Order: sequence, then C-alpha cells, then structure tokens
Amino acid sequence: MRIVVPAGGIGGARFLRGLKAALGIGSPAPEEQSTNAITVIGNTGDDITLFGLRICPDLDTVMYTLGGGIDEERGWGRTGETFTVKEELAAYGMRPTWFGLGDRDTATHIVRSQMLAAGYPLSAVTEALCDRWRPGVRLLPMTDDRVETHVVVEEDGARRAIHFQEWWIKHRAALPARSIVSMGAEDSAPAPGVLEAIAEADLVVLPPSNPVVSVGSVLGVPGIREALAAKTVVGVSPIIGGAPVRGMADACLDAIGVETDAGAVAAHLGADLLDGWLVDEADAGAEAEGIEVRSRPLYMSDPAATEAIARAALDLGLELAGRRGGGG
Amino acid sequence: MRIVVPAGGIGGARFLRGLKAALGIGSPAPEEQSTNAITVIGNTGDDITLFGLRICPDLDTVMYTLGGGIDEERGWGRTGETFTVKEELAAYGMRPTWFGLGDRDTATHIVRSQMLAAGYPLSAVTEALCDRWRPGVRLLPMTDDRVETHVVVEEDGARRAIHFQEWWIKHRAALPARSIVSMGAEDSAPAPGVLEAIAEADLVVLPPSNPVVSVGSVLGVPGIREALAAKTVVGVSPIIGGAPVRGMADACLDAIGVETDAGAVAAHLGADLLDGWLVDEADAGAEAEGIEVRSRPLYMSDPAATEAIARAALDLGLELAGRRGGGG
Repeated sequence: MRIVVPAGGIGGARFLRGLKAALGIGSPAPEEQSTNAITVIGNTGDDITLFGLRICPDLDTVMYTLGGGIDEERGWGRTGETFTVKEELAAYGMRPTWFGLGDRDTATHIVRSQMLAAGYPLSAVTEALCDRWRPGVRLLPMTDDRVETHVVVEEDGARRAIHFQEWWIKHRAALPARSIVSMGAEDSAPAPGVLEAIAEADLVVLPPSNPVVSVGSVLGVPGIREALAAKTVVGVSPIIGGAPVRGMADACLDAIGVETDAGAVAAHLGADLLDGWLVDEADAGAEAEGIEVRSRPLYMSDPAATEAIARAALDLGLELAGRRGGGG
Repeated sequence: MRIVVPAGGIGGARFLRGLKAALGIGSPAPEEQSTNAITVIGNTGDDITLFGLRICPDLDTVMYTLGGGIDEERGWGRTGETFTVKEELAAYGMRPTWFGLGDRDTATHIVRSQMLAAGYPLSAVTEALCDRWRPGVRLLPMTDDRVETHVVVEEDGARRAIHFQEWWIKHRAALPARSIVSMGAEDSAPAPGVLEAIAEADLVVLPPSNPVVSVGSVLGVPGIREALAAKTVVGVSPIIGGAPVRGMADACLDAIGVETDAGAVAAHLGADLLDGWLVDEADAGAEAEGIEVRSRPLYMSDPAATEAIARAALDLGLELAGRRGGGG
C-alpha cells in the first residue's frame, strides 16, 4: 500500500512513527523491506535563514524522529544536544538569540546550506541528508521554492509581519495574530516527485499536525490540494476537547477565524479534500458536512497508542476508499 | 611607545602576551590604559574556507590568546572547546575531516562569514570580533585581499599544490614540499591602517613566528616589507639549536632552501629589513652580516620568561634605534 502524508513537525513526526509501525515499515535499517511505502510531503513554510544557515525545522523533525536522532522529551532537535554555538553567537552580540540552534543541528544546517549554495534544490538536499538518517519514508519538501509563513501581528495598534518562527518561538504565539500569510506560495510549484507520489497513492493520511501552518502550508502550494482531493483522504484531528494536543494551533486557528474545535477544523480543511476524520472520544459528537467522522482515543501517549491511531486512520481510509471505489 | 608586530599564530600570540606585559598594557580590561600601544599585523595566508565558513587561524589565535579565550595546552582554539559540529559533519560524510573545527570556534567563523558575506572587509570584521575579546592590541589583518599560502608537494613523482592547512594539519608537514607559494600576494594591498601604523611606529618587533609562512606571508604583501625596513626592526629567533621551538618551521625552511639555523633565518629575512636579532644561548655564536645578533634564553616557558624575552627585544630595539637616530 502506498500512503502519502502531508506533515508538519512534532505531531506529524510522531504520528508517522506509528504509521510506519502499523504498516510494518522498519527503520532505520534499510534491509527491513515492506511492500508498504510512505511518502511524506514536508512543510517548509517554517523554514528560516539565520546566521547564514538554512534551517528546515519540520523536515528535520521528521528526519530525526524517524531516523532515531530526535530528542524525545523536547520533540525537536537532536538527542544529547548542546548549545555552544548558540551561546557563543550571543556572546558576539549576534541576533536573534531566541532560536534553539543546537550544535548537532548546526551541522545539518551547514550541510544543507552548503548544498543549496552549490545549486542543489532542497529536495536533493533532503534526500542527501536522509542518506544518513534512513527515516524509512520518502521525505519530500512540499516545494523547492522559497515559501515562508509570515504572521501579521498587532502591537500598540500597529501591524507588522514577522516570520512564523519569531511569532512561534520568541512570542510563544502570544502576540495577537491578525492573519497568517504563506509568502511565495502562489508562485511556488510542488517539489519533484510530490505530484507523482500523490497520483500513485492508495491513500492520503493527514496526521495531527497544525492544520493552519503545517498541513495548511502544504495545501497552499498550487497543485497539491487538487491532487490530494482526487484521492481518498483521511485525517486525524489535532484538536481534542477544544484545545490543541500540543503546540499553539489554537492561536493559528484564531488568526484565520476558525474555531478551535475538531469538527470546525475538518470543515475548514473542506469536504472536497477530506473524506474521513478521526476525532477523540471527547469530541464524539463532532460533525462536518460531507465528511465521515469517527471517534476514538487520539492521545499519542506512547508508541503502541500511536500505532493504534494510525491503524484506525488506515482502516477508515481503506473503508472509505472501498466505498468510493464501489460506488464509482 | 608604539610597536608594530607582524605575527603568525601560537608563537606570535604568546610572545605578544609577554610584550604586552613588558609594556604594561592591560588586557582584556579596556580601562587599563597605557601610553604604549601595539599594532599587530596578522598573517592571513593560513586562512581557509571550509563548510562555507571563512576561517582565519592566526588572527583567531592572537585574538583568543590575548583576550583570554585560548586553550593554553593546545595553543590554538578555545578553552573548554568541544567538537560536536565537526563530528556531525563527518557523520554526514562531509570532507575534510582533518580540520580541528571546534564548536565555540564555529561561532566565530559564522560571525566572520556573515559579515564578509554582507560586504564588510576582513579588517572591519576583525575589529568587530575584537570588540568582544578586547585583546589589548590593535589587530589588523595583513590584507583585506585574499592571499592563501599553497604548498607544492611531491608524491610518487607527481607535483601538486595543496592549501597550507592541508599540508600542515593533514600531512603534519611530512609530505616533501618543493615550494611554498603565496597565492594572490602580488595583487594584494595592505589592509587599511597597516602602513599608517608602521609609519607611526617607534619600533618593529618580529616575534618567534614561523619565518616562512607567518612573517614571510606578511612581508609578501606589496608595500609592507619596504615600510617595515624603514624602521628599526628587531626579531626573536624561532629556531633554537637548529630546530624550531614549536611547530614544523624546519619543513618550511627546507622547502625554500634555507637552513634551519638561527643565523640563517636572520640572513634570509635580510639585513635590509632586520637591524637586531635575538638568538638563544644555544646559538650564541650565530652571525648574520649587517645584523646585530645578541644571545639570551629564548624559551617562552612561562609568562615571566616570555615577558623577559620581550623586554630584551625592546631593549635591543631601543638601543639600535638610538644608535641609528644618533648616527643619522
């Protein structure tokens, strides 16, 4: 079975680990073959250039998580990470100081920046980095073009646009956001392999990633949403009981005028795209017109629970695909 | 008194620490003022770009040593240094792996590379870095132009030119060198402030730096040698008893056909440039035509010994300057 997963950072990466387990895909040992295959379309809207280094937080989180290098507690960055370079840059007076630039991580950014400077597209760079990490999935950036999520914030009555990372990390999403803009999205194209992977997919699964700045950014690349919509698409709600499971997705939903509610998020994603939607038992009554909503426990509390959620998403997907196939 | 010191790495930096002490120049506290001032003309021929980072080993060694950040045991790099970035780059298969890229050091290179990329000349970058380190001297690169020392080596009968750092670090200078070339030197110009500092100097002191690839590189920038030669110049021999005190200067001297001998090095530097030359007691009989040679203990075994050597160099310089001044 071929699955396509548009994914953001921590939530997406953890769900993918469960999905791999559910599909019997080993990692990182490449010899563990499976007839199942996952292609991840990674969000690159969070990417940022700091200190001359091109940083792709979501791609790295997926790569490290699936490749065994993630800091499990933080959910981002490398296990056993140190922050010497960051401290030294601050000692030189370099700004910003709010970004969590780890030493191990810095090497990843140096390799990426060097390859980009040499002319390789991000998709080729990501493939090269994955040569080391062997995440057990095919990890594609959503685009090789530069798309950056900016947030229009209001302070003292004045509005200005800041990079998503500044809003998310420096301001902990606490600065009121008036809108969220995917800069460059209109003129971007899907990275090589993205549309092909979708076309060949048996199923598309939306993990419990941030629906606005993760999944939303991927959907914002012209051509991707349409291609996905032609497939059977099931999603896992990142909202449980009116609050994000992790992160500050509520602030993002507020900014675009969508209620922080499992059903509202499904409706926002749209019945044209979404065929099935898993919500937590706390949201058992949630509905979204034209979308098959099922409830089950959705907390990814441990690997077994996460695998069970992934299996439920697959089951729902296959059921809906069969119905769709049967009904023409 | 205003002193100009053309300097390389470890030997030059340690001597400078003694010279500062001899002149009563405090460091790193800027409030400790002295009527004496040292301008260092730093060798940049060892500079190299690795992993997109511009690395200036000699400038950094001087800056860290005088600013209190040097690893005293190694003589280069930062105290308490770690090598995570280097190990991670190697894990990605990045080459070369032989360069000692420390994590703390990496931040220095990032700041420098960023400023250079923004258009600042190396002299301005060095000044900005010294804002943090407050070395107590004015540290100028010999040039803002790109000059790189390459070594023509012979292996299996075939000759090729490699960067000095590759020869020095990877091959420990053990690969037979046929010649040493200062690439770009002919078309380089002294950095802003270099000729002015020399013109205003009361004395020029050559520290026990490598005479070929450190002092020699500085002298290779058009205009610097002539400007220095117009001044009273005294030097401290880096060769004691027919061997370099530290490093592999003998391999460099071999490559240019100069004997590894205190007197021979003075003669190589030239009587047009050099007025006085301190040699160790082991070389008490050394002579160089037209150069006043004095012998005394020259091992920089501790700060007090180093200060005494610097004081002896100053005394010799002042004596020769007085004689010169008196004699017209």
